[in-house]
Amino acid sequence: MTGTTWQYENFEPTGSAIGYRIRRKLDEVQSPFQKIEIFETTDWGNLMLIDGAVMLTSRDNFFYHEMMSHPALFTHADPRHVVIIGGGDCGTLREVLKHPGVERAVQCDIDEQVTRMAEKWFPELCDANDDARAQLLFDDGIAYMADCEQASVDIVIVDSTDPVGPAEGLFNRAFYASCFRALKDDGILVQQSESPLALLELIREMRGEMRKAGFTGFRTLPFPQPCYPTGWWSCTLARKAGGFDFREDGAGVASRYYSADIHRGALTLPPFVAAALGD
Amino acid sequence: MTGTTWQYENFEPTGSAIGYRIRRKLDEVQSPFQKIEIFETTDWGNLMLIDGAVMLTSRDNFFYHEMMSHPALFTHADPRHVVIIGGGDCGTLREVLKHPGVERAVQCDIDEQVTRMAEKWFPELCDANDDARAQLLFDDGIAYMADCEQASVDIVIVDSTDPVGPAEGLFNRAFYASCFRALKDDGILVQQSESPLALLELIREMRGEMRKAGFTGFRTLPFPQPCYPTGWWSCTLARKAGGFDFREDGAGVASRYYSADIHRGALTLPPFVAAALGD
Repeated sequence: MTGTTWQYENFEPTGSAIGYRIRRKLDEVQSPFQKIEIFETTDWGNLMLIDGAVMLTSRDNFFYHEMMSHPALFTHADPRHVVIIGGGDCGTLREVLKHPGVERAVQCDIDEQVTRMAEKWFPELCDANDDARAQLLFDDGIAYMADCEQASVDIVIVDSTDPVGPAEGLFNRAFYASCFRALKDDGILVQQSESPLALLELIREMRGEMRKAGFTGFRTLPFPQPCYPTGWWSCTLARKAGGFDFREDGAGVASRYYSADIHRGALTLPPFVAAALGD
Repeated sequence: MTGTTWQYENFEPTGSAIGYRIRRKLDEVQSPFQKIEIFETTDWGNLMLIDGAVMLTSRDNFFYHEMMSHPALFTHADPRHVVIIGGGDCGTLREVLKHPGVERAVQCDIDEQVTRMAEKWFPELCDANDDARAQLLFDDGIAYMADCEQASVDIVIVDSTDPVGPAEGLFNRAFYASCFRALKDDGILVQQSESPLALLELIREMRGEMRKAGFTGFRTLPFPQPCYPTGWWSCTLARKAGGFDFREDGAGVASRYYSADIHRGALTLPPFVAAALGD
């Protein structure tokens, strides 16, 4: 195809790469934290890279954003106060606000430039930013959770980049202890938990840190995510108490990937993942 | 990592690419049909490319081979005679032969060199090749199905490359009509059916051709397959009659990805796929 090039992300931890056919670079900004680039692809809409790592494309981000939000929101009996740590592209916030019972959704991303770029190049993800229930903070998520009023939050969603660089502090016991403290007794912590094929050991370690912080129940839900390494991703839900049954009516929430059946299916791990996680 | 390079497959139909970190090229052969290359990767074991397209890696081929075989074999009430068209790496044959009720499994791949390379570089996939029930043919699968005795086969598995080049004739009405004729009334046709995100239109067209050939019932089962474009793949099952309930005891079949729960989950399509396929 004339005038196109290929842009690759070589992901060292898995020894695999993802690439896209690109028409042109649309934008670039060096924030105090990271370099954000936007490309126009031939088949995937717009593409955001942060420090060379694929964050999202217009075409396939719905898998991730729906699975980071709806399973937890349909598992919690009455989620009213949700905190999103990271999530600067606002896609998770949008899904959370589809739930009519949510009264307050705080998004705390350290890098305002991610949100500014999302508003410009992924406006569809930001269409709930003006919702009166939404509060967008640009601040350190670790400090935000540490300072949170005790037992005040129903769901914390950790929508972070990989556990290197700015997001490193979001994958350890100290951070999870802050989340534990901020959550009510029936609260749920959600963490994006990387590839259940290539990064199983990371999921095990992450659950170990969560357990040390006090969480007792865990579920890791796999889902397709073409733009991330291996194309197969997961979120992990952790609870202080209570199980993982969920409300199956899907009340009022439009989705493209998520459904009660998909949710039920995702709660069943393939034998090799279940064996590795001891589920 | 010293001495390594990256090897990419730019997949034009989806405008996306997959890549691997490579230590060295292990082997290469130009058969009468295609160029087959084997690489040693850093994290994925051995990698086979055919005409530059990723066919399989040691590490992740189990998703595909298990899902191409077990759903159909557990759906059919008593599968004894199975034909595999393509499948020269022998991985699907191995899974089929795990079913103790199978009396005869014919693998018909046009290119003997694929099997020779698999024996050399993926020996674990070939460990059932000496099974007395297995018959390996190196011949034209289209002719083989056209010449098959009528109503003699329980399951036909079309384990082919993409519908271009040698495999093009495996995705049309004439070929499916041969399969229909060769299958018994309760028989099942299985076709690898590409990415349910990026190639949905191909799945629709393929089902249309199957319908014209006489098949009346269809199910498309998605599964992760990191080494194929988008990392999310599918197989499509077609029947002349009968439904898609399946035997859930998993009798005697060891698997890493497949389980009755995974099978049940895969029968539930995400809303956007169900809408596109009219399921």
